[in-house]
This record gives sequence, C-alpha cells and structure tokens, in this order.
Amino acid sequence: MTVIEEMGALAKKASRTLANAGEKKNDALKAIAEALKNNSESIIEANNTDLENGRKNGLSASLLDRLMLNESRIDGIAQGVLEVAALPDPIGTVISGGTRPNGLKITKVRVPLGVIGIIYEARPNVTADAAALCLKSGNAVILRGGKEAIFSNKRIADIMRDAVESVGLDRNSIQLIEDTSRSSSVELMELTDYLDVLIPRGGKGLIRAVVENAKVPVIETGAGNCHVYVDESADINMAADIIYNAKTSRPSVCNAIETILVHEAVARDALPEIKERLDKKGVELRGCEKTAEILGDCVIPASESDWETEYGDYILAVKVVTDFDEAIAHIAKYSTGHSECIVTSDYKSARRFTEEVDAAAVYVNASTRFTDGGMFGLGAEIGISTQKLHARGPMGLNELTSMKFVIEGDGQVR
Amino acid sequence: MTVIEEMGALAKKASRTLANAGEKKNDALKAIAEALKNNSESIIEANNTDLENGRKNGLSASLLDRLMLNESRIDGIAQGVLEVAALPDPIGTVISGGTRPNGLKITKVRVPLGVIGIIYEARPNVTADAAALCLKSGNAVILRGGKEAIFSNKRIADIMRDAVESVGLDRNSIQLIEDTSRSSSVELMELTDYLDVLIPRGGKGLIRAVVENAKVPVIETGAGNCHVYVDESADINMAADIIYNAKTSRPSVCNAIETILVHEAVARDALPEIKERLDKKGVELRGCEKTAEILGDCVIPASESDWETEYGDYILAVKVVTDFDEAIAHIAKYSTGHSECIVTSDYKSARRFTEEVDAAAVYVNASTRFTDGGMFGLGAEIGISTQKLHARGPMGLNELTSMKFVIEGDGQVR
Repeated sequence: MTVIEEMGALAKKASRTLANAGEKKNDALKAIAEALKNNSESIIEANNTDLENGRKNGLSASLLDRLMLNESRIDGIAQGVLEVAALPDPIGTVISGGTRPNGLKITKVRVPLGVIGIIYEARPNVTADAAALCLKSGNAVILRGGKEAIFSNKRIADIMRDAVESVGLDRNSIQLIEDTSRSSSVELMELTDYLDVLIPRGGKGLIRAVVENAKVPVIETGAGNCHVYVDESADINMAADIIYNAKTSRPSVCNAIETILVHEAVARDALPEIKERLDKKGVELRGCEKTAEILGDCVIPASESDWETEYGDYILAVKVVTDFDEAIAHIAKYSTGHSECIVTSDYKSARRFTEEVDAAAVYVNASTRFTDGGMFGLGAEIGISTQKLHARGPMGLNELTSMKFVIEGDGQVR
Repeated sequence: MTVIEEMGALAKKASRTLANAGEKKNDALKAIAEALKNNSESIIEANNTDLENGRKNGLSASLLDRLMLNESRIDGIAQGVLEVAALPDPIGTVISGGTRPNGLKITKVRVPLGVIGIIYEARPNVTADAAALCLKSGNAVILRGGKEAIFSNKRIADIMRDAVESVGLDRNSIQLIEDTSRSSSVELMELTDYLDVLIPRGGKGLIRAVVENAKVPVIETGAGNCHVYVDESADINMAADIIYNAKTSRPSVCNAIETILVHEAVARDALPEIKERLDKKGVELRGCEKTAEILGDCVIPASESDWETEYGDYILAVKVVTDFDEAIAHIAKYSTGHSECIVTSDYKSARRFTEEVDAAAVYVNASTRFTDGGMFGLGAEIGISTQKLHARGPMGLNELTSMKFVIEGDGQVR
C-alpha cells in the first residue's frame, strides 16, 4: 500500500464511525474552533514559513495576501467553523417515503457520501472550511492543498485532528496529504477504492487537470464566463447598476460577469450610461464594431477569444445584438453555465430567458454576484458546481450527502 | 470533427429544443410505440441477421435468447414506451424555493441533464427503453450498443428517429453509434464537450472499463454482491423463504444474493432448513468450516474469492458468524453497496443494521429482489446506481435530471 492508499483506507474506516456520529460532530466542530483560536500563535508561525518561502519563490503580492494568516483571519476561520456547527444536520433526513401495496415500507434517507477528497491551491483557510463542512455532513476528508501553504495547512490539520480526537471521534476523519508533488494529486484522482468524490477548488488549470485525469467521481467547480443581457425593454439605469455591481464588486470571483450583450434598439442610450458607471473603476471595454461606433475610440476591438475569456479583472467584453435570439445563442455558445442575467421589463422575455438559458443560476433583474451558498440561504458552501450531475450551483451541506433506501418488511418475497 | 464529435454537437443542439418540449415529448413516445409495432416485420428481419451472425460467432444459447426479438417482445417494448409516456413529466418541477430578505425570489427547478450517453451490450430492447426514458426527461441520447445487436439496434433507432421527427421534434434527439469498434466507445467516454453523463449498462467488465477510462461524468450501475444476514433472533422460516427467493427467483440479476451470513446461535436450526429450500433448485453451497460441520459433505469449502464473487448463478456462499458485529464487518468488507438484508425479530438489530450498513437498499425482513424502479414505485428504471454521487439505487426519470436556480429580482445588487 502506498501512503495515499493507506490514508484512503483510514478515511474509509473513519467514515463508518462518522456516518452515525450525530451530535458528536458538533462537539468536534466546537473543539476545532476553540483549538484554532488557542493555537493561533503556532499557526501564524507556520504561516510565516510559507510566506518567507513564497517571497523567495517570487509569489505575487495578491497571492501572498491570500496566503497570509493573522489573528483576525484565524478568528474568522474559527467563526466559520462555529457557523457550520450551527447549521442543521442533513444526515438522517427523510427525503421521501411511503408504503407499497405489498406492505413494504420504503424510506429514502440522507446519508453521507463517505470519503471526500478536496484538491485546492494556495488559501490555507480552505483547509479548515472544507474540513468543517465534510465533518458536519458525516464525511471523512482527505485534503490536498497547494505547496505554497503546506506549513500552514499541516499545522491547521494537526490542530483539527487533535480536536476531533478529543471528543472521541476518529482523528482520521480529517487527513492532509503532506506530499505536494504532482504525483500525490494524481494518485488521489485515481483512488477509486476509497474516494467517493473529488472536489477541485481553484483555477481553470487545476479543474481541467482533475476532470481530464480523475478516475473517481468529480464535481467540477468554479469556471464562470457569465453574461448580462440588456433587453430592448430594460430599465437602463437598473441595467447599468447591475452591470457595474456584477463586474466591479469583486472581479476575480467566478460569479462576476465577463461579457454584456446589449439589444441594438437600446444600445445608443444604454452603452454611454453603462460606460460612465464602469469608468469609475477604470474598466477596460473590448467591444464589437457597433459598440465602438457608439462609444468611440476608448473601445478596444473584441476578437473571438474575448467572448471566451474569463478575465477575472477590470475588463468587460461588449456586444450589441440585433435581437433576443442572438443574445440567447451567444450565451448558449460561450457560457460556462454558471450565472446568466437578463435585464428586462418584458414578461415574455423574462419567461423565455429563464426557460431557455441553461445555467446553474439564471437571473432576471439582479446581479450575478448573488450566486453564493450564503446569499441563497444554504449556509456555508464548499464551492459552486458548474456540472449538471449531483449538484449544480452553490453546494451546501446537502450536496455533500448521498441517500439510501431503507426497506422494512415482514417477510415479503418477490 | 470526428463522426462521434459531430453526433455530440447534433445531440447538444437537439437537447436545447427538448428542454422545453413539454407535451410533444409524449406525442413522440406514442409515435415511437406505434411505429415499432407497425414495423415489427422489418425489425424481426434485422434481428434475424443479428441472430445468424451470433450463431456463426458461437454465441451461447442464453445470449441468443437475450438477443432475440419476436412480435410479442416488440409489443412488450412498445408497451414499455407507452408506460414511460404515461409517467408524470419531471421537467419544470419546483424542487424548493422562497424569497430572500432582500426580495430576491429564488426557485430551484428541475431541468434535463442535456445529453446522455448509454453504453450497453447485447439486448436490443435497451435501445428503445433507454431512448424513451431519456426523451421523456428532456434529454438527447447517444446510444452505443453491442455489435451482436447492431442490425436490430439500427433498425429500431431509425424507426424511433422518424417517429420523433414526425411530431416536429429534432430527429437527433435519439442517435445510435453504428461503429461498434472499441475506439467508438472510448471516444464516447472522452466526449467532454458534449456529454453530460455516460451510463454503462452491462457486465462487470464493461462497467469497469467505463469507470477507468471515462473523462465524462459516469453513473456506475449494476454490480451486486448482496447478502442476507440471519440474526440470532430471526424467524427461521422467514429467513429460509427470503433466502430462497433472493437466490433463486432470478440468479443472473444484480439484486440476487450471493452470500448468506448466519448467526452461530441459530446456525444449527437454520442451515438445514435453508438448505432444504435451496435443494429444490439444486443450489450449490460454498461454506465456511462451521457450515460444513453442520451441513456435512455437500458443502464445498469456501475460499476468500467466494466472499468476493457475484456468481449470477445457482451458487451461494455461506458463512457462520459469531455475532452481529462480525456480520456487519463482513458486509462492509465485501458488499458492492447494492442491496443488503437482515432477517431479525429484534428491534435494536433492525435499527443498527439499517443505520450501519452502507448500501443503496438496506432491507429488514424482505427479499433483496425488490430493488427495482418498478417495485419501488419509481416507474421504469434506466438502471441501478451503485455509486453515491447523483443517484443511488434504482434510477427513474428524476435521476435523469439536473436542476437550475431561477432568481427573480427588481434590480438587486450585492
């Protein structure tokens, strides 16, 4: 057995006790939150080693910032763990049930998935966030974080494992892969005997690599090439507000928009107002010919690749469309199926858009930035699924569960 | 573009019109049923070519029987299609919803998966059964049947495509891959740009190959190493009835049992009665030492591989266990997570078994043979999932769907 196979076997064993651990899971979460706060000094010390290594290796300032932990960030992480503890336990929920004509009582009950693998990149807070959600939903977790955060991750994982053990649960409910070479992540992707699902959290490259190479079931997350379509009947002021918010409130996240489509009947009125709003944040516009005609030289000519790109930055592609159908067709061609929005005052357009656009979240007259577990009222989220199998959109605790049928009889045979 | 990529693109296009096809889907299903009956002669002719080829290639009698179509079997297939038409349409169902404090109305709505691939083996009825379920749930389907049934499959697929077109839907809602070489199935497994899920239906080898090689999301089906545990408190007569039914009513199917575990306190009473029942069908017993001690020479000594094997035949492995925990541990080690049963009169044992055994269907005092979409009241089934992601147990129409969030606002920004 390799090290990672052994971890798989230990996780599977731990998952059996977790499946019916009930309130002990909350005891463990509370113990974790307390231990993280009590051990913040040693976490910061480990984090300093990561930061030093990062500086030596030329990490960018924004990556170093994502990597950095201080007292207040650790408090925030601990607080997040307590919030997970406060959520209702999904395990044991009866999803549906009834009695069959032959007297068999059949109940569909929510159960944990079993063993969850998480592959993620530089942010050490994911170590605690993901572990807390997995633990609460009765799953054992194997974490494989990025090498940039390995000292912080190890320290956090050790603290959590001790805390889990302190309330009488199996410390292997949470495990961290310490080998951050490529081979360890490939091995995790192929751990079919032990892993029930693998969730990659990170950039496009990571997610692509997991989808291409994994033999275990995967939930794809995070790619967001999102659009706002400004319909002929749109309230222009509302459209400009929504576009400004969806583009600039946090451009690096997946629910930010990358392209706007504007009906040509309102383009001459709408585009200048939209531009005025976006100018406040210096957003670069890459537009089609008609856009340039209306807005002038400030518009960089858009090429095919602009319609495909998730900029994650203060850049917005702009296309004037001749009608609703062209907008829908553009979205169908380029959308990653994350979040799509129409701004309209027309009942039929709203209805058609929500029916015909195929995305995890389809909006009428609201910013795509709301696609988020907390905003949707699901509690904390482990990520946003952009696939259609098992989970779509923000994934809360329910999305980390499976179900089983319990059939109770008194001797029925078929 | 390869032939199969082209099929993928056509399927994706068809899936868009199917997503909101409403009652037209039922019109198409009724047209299919009628066309299958009206064209039974040409189907039987094509089937005869398959049967001749099968005889030449030395197919076994049981495989030839599974391959064979006659008037009454075609009627049965058409009837099955009509039954699917009569099921409630899952698409558009509101799964949950509500209004957020900021006035956003969020609704979670059932939508089709999109494009479904089915890889299956020699049974031509699957061509129509699977297509009907995919169509009803608003999905385009790409079928990849076995070479043994290719003439029958082609004929059935052509009839169905014409019928779909006759009601005004896209004939590419149903497509069949005519190339039955290994490379066509590998290409389908890697069709990530177009396929939302791939469902293999067939033997262990096929399912293993798909799980190992697929880059698209897969739903694993069908492996069933199922157990009956006869508890200390079991009604021996009930146990013998259930074991007889679960082993012999149809040994080749996945919900038949392969091993029984008998508590040693009742083994001396139970085993002879169980054996007497099984003798009626000449079931071969492969037992542990204690089993041989009780039942004598008729018992073939069981080896490790017997605990792992899905015989699919009139063979049963038998193990005497010292207690409940040993039974649970054996099941945890060898079960494929399909269907597991306890026969008991003890409340606590029943409760522990349903809580602790991790399988799609967990039974108390009833035959495992009930694990079936029809028996569970789900309508027709596309297969029985033995994985935990997305679907577990019998998969009906709901399991062929995804969901989306529809968010309706009046200008909300975050």
